[in-house]
Amino acid sequence: MYPESLKKLIESFRLLPGVGEKTAERMAFSILDFDDENITYFSDSLKEAKEKIHPCSICNTLTDQEKCSICSDEKRNKKKLCVVDDSKSVFMFERLKIFDGVYHVLNGLISPLEGVNPEDIGIEKLLERVKKENFEEIIFALTPSIEGETTVLYIKQILDDNKIKITKLASGVPVGAEMEYMDVLTLERALSERKEVA
Amino acid sequence: MYPESLKKLIESFRLLPGVGEKTAERMAFSILDFDDENITYFSDSLKEAKEKIHPCSICNTLTDQEKCSICSDEKRNKKKLCVVDDSKSVFMFERLKIFDGVYHVLNGLISPLEGVNPEDIGIEKLLERVKKENFEEIIFALTPSIEGETTVLYIKQILDDNKIKITKLASGVPVGAEMEYMDVLTLERALSERKEVA
Repeated sequence: MYPESLKKLIESFRLLPGVGEKTAERMAFSILDFDDENITYFSDSLKEAKEKIHPCSICNTLTDQEKCSICSDEKRNKKKLCVVDDSKSVFMFERLKIFDGVYHVLNGLISPLEGVNPEDIGIEKLLERVKKENFEEIIFALTPSIEGETTVLYIKQILDDNKIKITKLASGVPVGAEMEYMDVLTLERALSERKEVA
Repeated sequence: MYPESLKKLIESFRLLPGVGEKTAERMAFSILDFDDENITYFSDSLKEAKEKIHPCSICNTLTDQEKCSICSDEKRNKKKLCVVDDSKSVFMFERLKIFDGVYHVLNGLISPLEGVNPEDIGIEKLLERVKKENFEEIIFALTPSIEGETTVLYIKQILDDNKIKITKLASGVPVGAEMEYMDVLTLERALSERKEVA
C-alpha cells in the first residue's frame, strides 16, 4: 500500500527499541519533511557511530578514540576504580558528576542460568589492569540483582590476596521513594543493612 | 561526555517527533548493537525516501512512481473522488479497504488565521481534474475542524455549477466511544444532525 521506499523507511524505524507500527509511520512521514542537510546528518551519523565507536583499550567505555576521554584525563583520581557492567553507567555517573576516579566496564554480569561464565564478561582484562595499576579502592557499581551480587563475590574472591579495599554501592530504599510501592527484596535489604541513627 | 559520533547519533534521533533525550539515547545505543546490514538498510532508506518519494502527478498521494498505485489501477471506480487533506488519510482509507474510488490530496486546509489561502492548498489542480474527468460524486473527507469546514464550503461554491453530487463524511459520536468523555462540539453536532430511527 505504501510506496516501496516509504515502506523500507518505516521498517527501518521498526528496528528501534520501543517503536511500534504507528510510531514508525509517524517518524517516517516526519523524515519526508526534513531538509536534505538533516537527512544527510542522520544517515551519516548511523554509519559513523557503528564504524567509529568501540570500547576504550583500557577501560572498555565506548569511545571513538583509542583511549576514552576519562582514561586520557590526567586530572582523574587513578587510585579509585569504579567497576560497572555497561558503558551507559559510566555516562550516567559522568553526567551526575559524583565520581572523580576511573572506570572499568565489564561485558555484562556472570549468569550461570543464562550460560554467561566469568570468562565471558572480560574479568581477565580487569584483573590484569588491577595488577598493573595501583588502585587503593575498587568500587562495584553493578546492577543490583543476583547476577550482580554473584559477579561482585566472584571477583572479590580472586582479589582478596591484594591489599585493595573492595566496596560496593549501598543498597536500600531509594531517596524520595514511596514506601507503599517498595518491593519486598529492597525492603528486606534495607532492613538487614539498617544503620544506627547517629 | 559522550564520544562525538555517539552524540551526533543521539542528536539525529532527537530530530524525530516525540523523541526526548532519554529515548534518543536508548535508540542510539541500540544502533551500536545492529549488524552492518541493518545499519546500511536504515541509512540508505533515509536517503532514498527523501529522494524517491513525491506527490503523484494526478492526485498528489505520496508515491515513488510518476502515477501512484491507485491512479494506475484500472479496477478503481473513477466516478467517485475522495478529497483528503493529507496523504496519510489515503493510506488509512486503503488500509481499511472501505473505498473503491480514487483520491485527491489537498496541500492542507484553508486557514485565514494562519495565512493559508485557497491558492496555497492546490485547489486549482483539483478543479482542473474535475473539469477533465467525469466524476459523479466528490466526497470530502477532510479533518473535522473549522478549517476543514471552510475548505469544503469554499470548493463547493465553485463546483456548484457542475452537476456533480458533493458530499462529506457524516460527523457525530464515534462508534464505541464513552459518552461521558465526548466533547461539546461533537455532541452538539450529533444532536443537530440526529437521524430518525427507522
